[in-house]
Amino acid sequence: MNKFSKQLLTVGEMASGVSLTVPVYQLKGSGSGPSVYIQANIHGAEVQGNAVIYQLLEQLQSIELFGDITLVPYANPVACNHKNGEYTLGRFDPITGVNWNRMYHFNESLIDSVIEQHQDSDVDTIKKAFKQCMLADIQDQIDHNNYGLSTGRRIAYQLQQMAHSADIVLDLHTGPISSKHLYCPEYLTGSASHFNIPHTILIPNTFDGAMDEACFCPWWSLTQRFQKLGRNLDFNQESFTVELGSQELIDLDEALVDANSILSYLQYKNVVNSKRYVAEKMTRHACYLKDYKVYYAPMGGMVDYLATFGEELKAGEPLARILRMDNYGDGNALHYLTLEQDVIPILHFASASVNQGTQLYKLFTNYFTL
Amino acid sequence: MNKFSKQLLTVGEMASGVSLTVPVYQLKGSGSGPSVYIQANIHGAEVQGNAVIYQLLEQLQSIELFGDITLVPYANPVACNHKNGEYTLGRFDPITGVNWNRMYHFNESLIDSVIEQHQDSDVDTIKKAFKQCMLADIQDQIDHNNYGLSTGRRIAYQLQQMAHSADIVLDLHTGPISSKHLYCPEYLTGSASHFNIPHTILIPNTFDGAMDEACFCPWWSLTQRFQKLGRNLDFNQESFTVELGSQELIDLDEALVDANSILSYLQYKNVVNSKRYVAEKMTRHACYLKDYKVYYAPMGGMVDYLATFGEELKAGEPLARILRMDNYGDGNALHYLTLEQDVIPILHFASASVNQGTQLYKLFTNYFTL
Amino acid sequence: MNKFSKQLLTVGEMASGVSLTVPVYQLKGSGSGPSVYIQANIHGAEVQGNAVIYQLLEQLQSIELFGDITLVPYANPVACNHKNGEYTLGRFDPITGVNWNRMYHFNESLIDSVIEQHQDSDVDTIKKAFKQCMLADIQDQIDHNNYGLSTGRRIAYQLQQMAHSADIVLDLHTGPISSKHLYCPEYLTGSASHFNIPHTILIPNTFDGAMDEACFCPWWSLTQRFQKLGRNLDFNQESFTVELGSQELIDLDEALVDANSILSYLQYKNVVNSKRYVAEKMTRHACYLKDYKVYYAPMGGMVDYLATFGEELKAGEPLARILRMDNYGDGNALHYLTLEQDVIPILHFASASVNQGTQLYKLFTNYFTL
Amino acid sequence: MNKFSKQLLTVGEMASGVSLTVPVYQLKGSGSGPSVYIQANIHGAEVQGNAVIYQLLEQLQSIELFGDITLVPYANPVACNHKNGEYTLGRFDPITGVNWNRMYHFNESLIDSVIEQHQDSDVDTIKKAFKQCMLADIQDQIDHNNYGLSTGRRIAYQLQQMAHSADIVLDLHTGPISSKHLYCPEYLTGSASHFNIPHTILIPNTFDGAMDEACFCPWWSLTQRFQKLGRNLDFNQESFTVELGSQELIDLDEALVDANSILSYLQYKNVVNSKRYVAEKMTRHACYLKDYKVYYAPMGGMVDYLATFGEELKAGEPLARILRMDNYGDGNALHYLTLEQDVIPILHFASASVNQGTQLYKLFTNYFTL
Repeated sequence: MNKFSKQLLTVGEMASGVSLTVPVYQLKGSGSGPSVYIQANIHGAEVQGNAVIYQLLEQLQSIELFGDITLVPYANPVACNHKNGEYTLGRFDPITGVNWNRMYHFNESLIDSVIEQHQDSDVDTIKKAFKQCMLADIQDQIDHNNYGLSTGRRIAYQLQQMAHSADIVLDLHTGPISSKHLYCPEYLTGSASHFNIPHTILIPNTFDGAMDEACFCPWWSLTQRFQKLGRNLDFNQESFTVELGSQELIDLDEALVDANSILSYLQYKNVVNSKRYVAEKMTRHACYLKDYKVYYAPMGGMVDYLATFGEELKAGEPLARILRMDNYGDGNALHYLTLEQDVIPILHFASASVNQGTQLYKLFTNYFTL
Repeated sequence: MNKFSKQLLTVGEMASGVSLTVPVYQLKGSGSGPSVYIQANIHGAEVQGNAVIYQLLEQLQSIELFGDITLVPYANPVACNHKNGEYTLGRFDPITGVNWNRMYHFNESLIDSVIEQHQDSDVDTIKKAFKQCMLADIQDQIDHNNYGLSTGRRIAYQLQQMAHSADIVLDLHTGPISSKHLYCPEYLTGSASHFNIPHTILIPNTFDGAMDEACFCPWWSLTQRFQKLGRNLDFNQESFTVELGSQELIDLDEALVDANSILSYLQYKNVVNSKRYVAEKMTRHACYLKDYKVYYAPMGGMVDYLATFGEELKAGEPLARILRMDNYGDGNALHYLTLEQDVIPILHFASASVNQGTQLYKLFTNYFTL
Repeated sequence: MNKFSKQLLTVGEMASGVSLTVPVYQLKGSGSGPSVYIQANIHGAEVQGNAVIYQLLEQLQSIELFGDITLVPYANPVACNHKNGEYTLGRFDPITGVNWNRMYHFNESLIDSVIEQHQDSDVDTIKKAFKQCMLADIQDQIDHNNYGLSTGRRIAYQLQQMAHSADIVLDLHTGPISSKHLYCPEYLTGSASHFNIPHTILIPNTFDGAMDEACFCPWWSLTQRFQKLGRNLDFNQESFTVELGSQELIDLDEALVDANSILSYLQYKNVVNSKRYVAEKMTRHACYLKDYKVYYAPMGGMVDYLATFGEELKAGEPLARILRMDNYGDGNALHYLTLEQDVIPILHFASASVNQGTQLYKLFTNYFTL
Repeated sequence: MNKFSKQLLTVGEMASGVSLTVPVYQLKGSGSGPSVYIQANIHGAEVQGNAVIYQLLEQLQSIELFGDITLVPYANPVACNHKNGEYTLGRFDPITGVNWNRMYHFNESLIDSVIEQHQDSDVDTIKKAFKQCMLADIQDQIDHNNYGLSTGRRIAYQLQQMAHSADIVLDLHTGPISSKHLYCPEYLTGSASHFNIPHTILIPNTFDGAMDEACFCPWWSLTQRFQKLGRNLDFNQESFTVELGSQELIDLDEALVDANSILSYLQYKNVVNSKRYVAEKMTRHACYLKDYKVYYAPMGGMVDYLATFGEELKAGEPLARILRMDNYGDGNALHYLTLEQDVIPILHFASASVNQGTQLYKLFTNYFTL
């Protein structure tokens, strides 16, 4: 039976002065495997990751651990407590509009200084030095800011410090109404098959402020820089965004299924020692980020979403139909939406009522099997 | 093939000056049956009624009609266009908090004047006089208001004029995440079995501002007043709120099922002439409004809703479980919610994230079969 | 130097489990004067009362106190932490639409039982018995609720317990963009002149769920019932809603002015002993609640508010002008709004952008000087 | 008397099908001066620009015009009709969080093709060719999008087509609670003194999606590219964001003052011919964008904003004080905020209630006089 420790991280303060804290659970491994950081609920409405962390904690206490594991549910209590009518405000700071998952930090210039000092060092020394360098840089961002730090960055930077200390980072998200899918950096395509997730988006080495990018872009870039210097190094640093399904839902039974999927990957990475967790055989489709298309509503109206997630929709077949009762009698009251190429629908908008130009679907195009 | 006419009713004006209009569809019957008024979407997120009206219109054009039928989708365009983040703001004016379905008008004093003038008139004369009286009273509210009319009343009163002109009124709503159910005045219990709806809430003769009440309370009260005078009159005026399921959803196939349910009732009431539409045999549970309980969340947290709508939940069986990850390790992370009496769950809250005191469930208690 | 005690009241719990607490400050008087309860910020955006309580606390520590004083800022932390974009969501529970100041409790049947038992008791005995009776009744509401308590009632009932224990209750509010005004029960008209507030709305003995009503209606009703029995009793129970100006503003200097206004009233009521606090001479206008009119926007548009708060606006003079650029060139781009009778404007809507039917102004009509 | 023409541009469609249109006013000049495009209200709450356009239209009808002038109020009806409680949702698409003023288009590659074809052409030919090229590129974005266009881009691109057709572009905005200020590209510093605006932010040649940038970055870049080729060309293309004061306000009298300020600039640019409009003498402060600092709230609380807009605040002087009643008695209830360098406060947050990390102030540092 592994014991876990629990700490509270203070990440924010509201108008009445109430402090918002984040619980941090830690389990110690034997030290022979990589360390892991898993967080959930950085977006307010994406709560299912908390249930997955619950199921992970339940199981991790009785498995042999090679690596240390840090688990952080409710990573963004400002967002997760922000009700907007009946629903929870999803993806961005309601005051600024900035996506909560676009506020992490990456200082490309740190790579230069590490390479300068460690051109010939061994992998472990470089890894350690680069981690220290990134942690110090973030600490500096937190400490030296005469003009303060935005609500989101204060949270993001504290989480990122824990993430940078680990070798493997999983950021648990959900879509609006969505199938399960995985954001995977291209250089880690081989790892994608160890999750029980049928759809993978392969993303390039571009930092756009997200947690997964903040954790793999530095290492990917460092690797490439060493390659130019003639050294092929593998830092064994991995980072993924795991999309668990739909927002606004808690399902503890399904959370157990997803916890097992994550444990299967952790077993593959030698973090845990339990043959029980093996990736399922399934067809895994993937596409490149540039081929992961947003389909915008061509008109305002009320949408009957038709296409089944995860199944190929042939060109010309109906994706959805839009009801426009105002046109009944003098126009088309029912509009069928089709596309000119084959796609796999991955997620759709959370409501039937849409304005013209609302993000209706996200779809795989030019997809292939992994 | 029955032709329908279409008109636009202007019900509001937004800040940029854009007018909001409501389409009104009318079909003429032979005149031998009662007239009908059906509206949908007075609450912004409750859109499925528009799809039901679509399916009604599709069918009514090819059935023999005894009564006139008026159909009004998008009855409240202010609400149905009011997006709040991804979702549509549901049940109340976002500026005042007043429920859009609590702004109808009932002037009890009109009953006195009708009785005074028509103590010995026949039913048809009384009915006609009372309708004229109510219509004139509402017109007066619209016309003579030096200090203006609120956004909601301006809409409600215009709709109510059409409703008062009819003999039968159906107001199409939905719950948040919900089974189908019917609000039925106690004196119309016999009609409830002609809808394909398994749950009926029997409501008393109390005016609280809703459309269904605004349409049956005057007639119920008038009937009772005549009873005291020794006359048993049946004005054949009926009014129901039909709850079609969950909000934020359009499902045209399910809308056809519900259109058929309504046509079955209209066939029973002699509005349409088609043997095709017959009420299904099913167990119909009912309870009185006082026994239709709101269950409030006993704590804040994230809810895994467990109970199945429409099925009896025995005392002590779990209704839901609440995840409280902040308590993991030093308290209960999982709380099972149970009740001390048997209930039938009818609907639950739309989101997994709840504050302490959020309306979690609405439940039948002391229920019985119709 | 009077010492104060401080306690924390737990009133709510959010989705992440964070508790929301209310600070309660208490100062002990000598016991020879009436006791006082003052709360602020039951509506989220109405924050200035917190600053007034700050200034009261600063001064009350150095004045002789005859009565006990309880001060409760941030009375509704659920509302005061509920940001909605840049602003704070004002007056109602964002999930249900119910006004936070319409959830207090009044059980009229308690009057019967008190009168039955204390028909001939002296004033103090009756007063004590009725208070105990009301407190027990509220405690019962809190304790015995198999189906739970709504977010708002949980807060309201806990606050009301403190209020019922006092003789004088002040509920500090603000309007949207507003002048200072006072809601005063008709039987306390004499007290209104002891505040430095130029506008008073005289309200009848009707319970509509507000804190002030919950505190005076029981006593007013009890007094009237004893009058019917031939006894003229004065329970010396007073209760007011004090409107401090505009929402979304903190002004500590103006708060001192308002603290002095309240201390002037408390000096008059023999709660504090300091001749320093004397009501200012000023023209005080009043009107009855039925004459306190809401003026609704006759059209959508953008409003240039013209009338000066607190000054008489003669019939026909412009209250505001509405810009409708969409009409420029083919209609009136500028609409002047006027009224057919003299009014005193007290407050107006918080934004220039209005829909048709938005509450534009609240106005005194048929006003008189106190 | 100059006549104006009026057209309606359809820019969006809401869930009920209602179309949202933008009125476009055009006045013809003699052709000897540059053409002008002025729009207002791209951000929902920033309405005062509509009033300025009203006052401009009133005056432009009776002045001699050398250049054509296009005026577009209500440029974003989706945003300007989006009420969120009492207020209008300010700066971003409420569904996606994307700032409405970050959706314009700039295709840097067009510069290459123009230079390639027109290396030796004269200024007018180059100007005409580049405009045609940019217009065709935007038209292509609108026309060829199999996956649709977002709500905001559909609006932005249509507005940008009108803007690119003009030589001078003014985008009328406001801050939250704000003084008047001007965003001016560094190469147009000389023009800033012809507006009656005391504060100017000098911005670099970086495209970040805003209208002003979309209109000057292409020309600035083109000029620099020709400079490298040894040609010093002046395309006489100017573009500014004019910040008129505070949001949520309409003041037609102040709008006349601002209309005159704009006419003074247009007179200087030879668009209108009226000596009446001359820039006022005033101290005009400026700073570079990198020195225009956001100051974030160091704690949650309720803010009494103290510093006066436009006046120098010396290091160490209080910018604001934050009330924290929860700390009264066991900590500091009042926190004074100061800075370590001299600043000029330009705007502050719209509400007194702030979370930790809210954008409290925007301030000039390292400022200088123009």
